Amino acid sequence: MTASTDIGTTTLFDSATFRSVFRRHAAGVAVITAPGARPVGFTATSLTSVSAEPPLLSFGISTGASAWPTVSEAPFVGIHILGEHQQDVAATFARSGADRFGPQTAWRTGAHGVPLLDDVSAWLVARVVARIPAGDHRIVVAQAIAGDPEGPGRPLLYHQGGFNALRH
Amino acid sequence: MTASTDIGTTTLFDSATFRSVFRRHAAGVAVITAPGARPVGFTATSLTSVSAEPPLLSFGISTGASAWPTVSEAPFVGIHILGEHQQDVAATFARSGADRFGPQTAWRTGAHGVPLLDDVSAWLVARVVARIPAGDHRIVVAQAIAGDPEGPGRPLLYHQGGFNALRH
Repeated sequence: MTASTDIGTTTLFDSATFRSVFRRHAAGVAVITAPGARPVGFTATSLTSVSAEPPLLSFGISTGASAWPTVSEAPFVGIHILGEHQQDVAATFARSGADRFGPQTAWRTGAHGVPLLDDVSAWLVARVVARIPAGDHRIVVAQAIAGDPEGPGRPLLYHQGGFNALRH
Repeated sequence: MTASTDIGTTTLFDSATFRSVFRRHAAGVAVITAPGARPVGFTATSLTSVSAEPPLLSFGISTGASAWPTVSEAPFVGIHILGEHQQDVAATFARSGADRFGPQTAWRTGAHGVPLLDDVSAWLVARVVARIPAGDHRIVVAQAIAGDPEGPGRPLLYHQGGFNALRH
């Protein structure tokens, strides 16, 4: 199912102020992966739980992202919550042109062919149930079908353009 | 515009494991407000930037939330990124039955009648452009029309059921 409403077409507010507001916000860091002719993945700070019953989550992706053509068709995605020991993984999956599944990345193939990263704090495999147009991004909603909450580490955070961690 | 697709109707995965995965995730803390016969507001850990051009954001709300009847009809909402000095505000707007706009809360009325909390790190007034059904929750998408990124404090965080803050 894909909702077809195109959201937000006129800009009434400058995007510089909008970006400045969200630079004051902090977020946990995730890597989203998807299977394809070649696996794809990208670092996301927009992962959020939507509903526990059914177990739904969402994340955002730009239609200009290198991973988008694959994510736009993938029936399943991998969701990885990174630990603070994984700043290098977050940087690799955020860097344009990086060989994200090269020798520096430890990963395996999970259910439905979904690439799963090793050593993450927690992961899910989820079935995509909607890709909702919102400006030049899509809000992807997916339903978890498998996962493990018992990996190592405490959350890696992103704030004001840099990585961070919890105080306590 | 409201997308009408109802997302996620069959549960294939236990919600306890799903909740455990998201307990490993950390998130910034926001308060969402809306004008009505009486103003409403609630603490949210699902606020995320969706797109900068146009300036779109999203947050989640349970249809069982006390604020939902008002949010379901509000044309505009207030978005507040809380600072770590505002743990009491986050607790007030999360507590069932609390008089959230009583004497303990410093607030004013902003554009379009939106309740604006004082002393927050950053705030936006945003026009609701979609309320997307997802299980027993709705994903609300809104377009920013006004805001201020220059309030005090560094972000208040939520992790594993408690408040937290940035290390650096």
